[in-house]
Amino acid sequence: MSDIKELVENKELLGKITTAEDAARLVKRDMMLGCSGFTPSGYPKVVPTALARRAEAEGPIPVGIWTGASTGPELDGELARTGCISRRFPYQTNEEIRKGINSGEIQFADIHLSHCAQNIRYGFYGKIDIAIIEALRITPEGGIVPTSSVGNSNAFVEVADKVIVEINTEQPKGLDGIHDIYSPENPPHRKPIPITNVHDRIGVPYIPCPPGKIVAIVPSDVKDSQRPLAPSDEISSKMASNLIDFLSVEANAGKLPKGLLPLQSGVGNIANAVLEGLAAWPTDGLTVYTEVIQDSVFELLDSGKIAFASSTALTPSPDGAAKYYPRLGDFKDRIVLRPQEISNNPEVIRRLGLIAMNTAVEVDIYGHVNSTMAGGTKMLNGIGGSGDFARNAYLTVFLCPSTSAGGKISKVVPFCSHVDHTEHDVDIIVTEYGIADLRGLSPRERSAEIIDHCAHPDYRELLRDYKHRAELGKGHEPHLLGEAFSWHERLRLSGTMKK
Amino acid sequence: MSDIKELVENKELLGKITTAEDAARLVKRDMMLGCSGFTPSGYPKVVPTALARRAEAEGPIPVGIWTGASTGPELDGELARTGCISRRFPYQTNEEIRKGINSGEIQFADIHLSHCAQNIRYGFYGKIDIAIIEALRITPEGGIVPTSSVGNSNAFVEVADKVIVEINTEQPKGLDGIHDIYSPENPPHRKPIPITNVHDRIGVPYIPCPPGKIVAIVPSDVKDSQRPLAPSDEISSKMASNLIDFLSVEANAGKLPKGLLPLQSGVGNIANAVLEGLAAWPTDGLTVYTEVIQDSVFELLDSGKIAFASSTALTPSPDGAAKYYPRLGDFKDRIVLRPQEISNNPEVIRRLGLIAMNTAVEVDIYGHVNSTMAGGTKMLNGIGGSGDFARNAYLTVFLCPSTSAGGKISKVVPFCSHVDHTEHDVDIIVTEYGIADLRGLSPRERSAEIIDHCAHPDYRELLRDYKHRAELGKGHEPHLLGEAFSWHERLRLSGTMKK
Repeated sequence: MSDIKELVENKELLGKITTAEDAARLVKRDMMLGCSGFTPSGYPKVVPTALARRAEAEGPIPVGIWTGASTGPELDGELARTGCISRRFPYQTNEEIRKGINSGEIQFADIHLSHCAQNIRYGFYGKIDIAIIEALRITPEGGIVPTSSVGNSNAFVEVADKVIVEINTEQPKGLDGIHDIYSPENPPHRKPIPITNVHDRIGVPYIPCPPGKIVAIVPSDVKDSQRPLAPSDEISSKMASNLIDFLSVEANAGKLPKGLLPLQSGVGNIANAVLEGLAAWPTDGLTVYTEVIQDSVFELLDSGKIAFASSTALTPSPDGAAKYYPRLGDFKDRIVLRPQEISNNPEVIRRLGLIAMNTAVEVDIYGHVNSTMAGGTKMLNGIGGSGDFARNAYLTVFLCPSTSAGGKISKVVPFCSHVDHTEHDVDIIVTEYGIADLRGLSPRERSAEIIDHCAHPDYRELLRDYKHRAELGKGHEPHLLGEAFSWHERLRLSGTMKK
Repeated sequence: MSDIKELVENKELLGKITTAEDAARLVKRDMMLGCSGFTPSGYPKVVPTALARRAEAEGPIPVGIWTGASTGPELDGELARTGCISRRFPYQTNEEIRKGINSGEIQFADIHLSHCAQNIRYGFYGKIDIAIIEALRITPEGGIVPTSSVGNSNAFVEVADKVIVEINTEQPKGLDGIHDIYSPENPPHRKPIPITNVHDRIGVPYIPCPPGKIVAIVPSDVKDSQRPLAPSDEISSKMASNLIDFLSVEANAGKLPKGLLPLQSGVGNIANAVLEGLAAWPTDGLTVYTEVIQDSVFELLDSGKIAFASSTALTPSPDGAAKYYPRLGDFKDRIVLRPQEISNNPEVIRRLGLIAMNTAVEVDIYGHVNSTMAGGTKMLNGIGGSGDFARNAYLTVFLCPSTSAGGKISKVVPFCSHVDHTEHDVDIIVTEYGIADLRGLSPRERSAEIIDHCAHPDYRELLRDYKHRAELGKGHEPHLLGEAFSWHERLRLSGTMKK
């Protein structure tokens, strides 16, 4: 056990320091646990691992797990594998848990990330029994200083009966002071969120917590399980350059400021490629208001291209962490980590006027977007923050390659097999073939735009044939419902969407 | 021509008083017109009618028409009938125009009502050539005092090159002073919208307009073409009482204040029935933050059950107008009409914590909602404000009868033929059979809840059969894509969804 006494600055709490095994004993069957963590950053590691060990010895201890978003293998992986997750909110990316979700054994609710905290406070999902929060230290007042993410931790601490703190001595000390914790009141007492600039700080740099709630403090030295980023490939670079060309045209036409508006981009290689591409943007001083800070944002902060980045999590790759975590002090006045209720808040997103860039699983010819479900049924990760941003941004962009599976799957289909974002919310679609600008177009115009500019040439004639035959039957948004999903059915039965 | 000179208080503008025919001559082919009007309230009547007459004589003069929402027959009906509408945003309810939309002759973009004004200001849809605004009077500074709605009129006046004002002497004088006009700045200069209570007034009671923009002032004495409200039938009363029972349970459980939170409800008989049902709510002083004020809101304001109502339009039935318009003075300190950008603003909706109650065209077993399109293709009216409210409310409720067409159509289907609101946004579904409370449920749990509590008994076994067979194939949200739309296909081919 590493010595964490000096990190527990509220000395009344020293007696709460204990082992992960003892802390895990506080968890009972059917409890609801609220855990820190957003992307595999800042999640508790040793208490969940100890709970999984206990389950291996005693049999499954099924509980409900709330987090910020996805976590690492020590939490989602271990607890799913040992049968300890009966219910899971609001997002995940772990192979082990996904198996349980898709078999129906784990009840998963896929919730807009900005809505979680308030719905918990409203009492919509029952109470949180125990919050388990990874921290850098505990302040003299009992405040919990988070680590590499904030997520929903403030809300969990507010509503939980008990709080377990994992003090992680391997998280970079440079994170201390980076957080800005603000919790809106519930209606009818809620006030405007006073953010008018990406860099505004409106709260305190720790999660307030009555010391009496803290029932266990556990040392940890397990690092975040960061995921490597694949280098940008030709297709993601092409998508990025298509998008950036479009943004240039918009800025030159006066529809966007020359220095753009605050940028939001999703997690993963495509998002990273877009931000990398912005290294060549003609003006410095860009800003980022998003939910994750990946390697490219660190790079652009370093070069001065980005002046400030607001997020709820740092999500570097292992290489990015090795490079930038030791230098966090250099960035601390240019990064803020907020609760996801604030990083993803519709009020702030709409006020600041974000350019929201997220990845689609598939799009249809009218501009509906599937973000979550393969073949309409198999959960991939979840909607995450994409709806929070897409619905309220200045400009809503979805990116996807035109095909996958070596061309066997067209990402442009007649009818999305699952709709997460509707035609009412999507402005721009980008593939490696081009841009579809859907603003102000009718469905018939949108389908022409998407097929001509975004679909893979191998699928364009098939899509045009569907469009043509559907339009014979009239209707504002022409469809042949009897064959709307025939592309997905063909894929399922023959392994390809090609005819 | 009625004498409107005393209503033009800016005397420099007296020379602009002219006939509807002359004003209509200012409209040229391919122009974009921004017209006042929201629901059939406060729309220009005599200039569009004169334009239609001109088109009858000279041949079609196709233009793009922007409004707040739906308008009356003098605008949408006459101009569609005479071939003068090539493009239409963002909502309509007129039979004549719907015909053109569904035949593909009129390009209709179905846009969230709160997004219109900002997207116009951002320049996303090109410019507005002429704004045509119905007014009570013009102030000495040239300010335009609107009539029975505000809609997007302030934005149209801001961006249009020219403004035509119809001064309607038949609109009730009691409307003067009821409006509160506030236009947010564009990002990056936008500030918090300072509404923290339904009754807050944050702007001025007229639409500011540089007098030089006003090119014509036309007298009008044509009344709003109000639509009668059908009396509540047994089914809508049952839906209303199911919903109100649910709200009681929530309030008693402490999940809602005893005096509820601000209420929003859509247009039409079901919405009216719900509000009528609230006459029996145990506490007085309810509030309304919505886009339309129908008869029931006047009644509840009159009885004191509702303390204050904020809206963008008054939409009484002819009977309601006859009863309450002469008494507007009694209500003026308890009603405010705002631009739809504010009445439907996500920032304000989320801050105030609305209970949003809207009508669905159909719902599916997982809680997706179709609000716009019959059989996935035929436009009915449009999404209107339902997405603005549903996406950001405290509690999002959709109501629909369990069947229509004498039982031949089930409103609960395996897969919505068009998705306007996703599973991520829908909390509660109500039919005359009961309530499905979807909060925190996984898709498998949601489908059980919806089938058991909301579907018509005649369709429950068919739905259960689909659910059961879909679940054999696994997946988080089980579907049989090959037969997902078979109910709609059966209806199309055999006239009923029944087997």
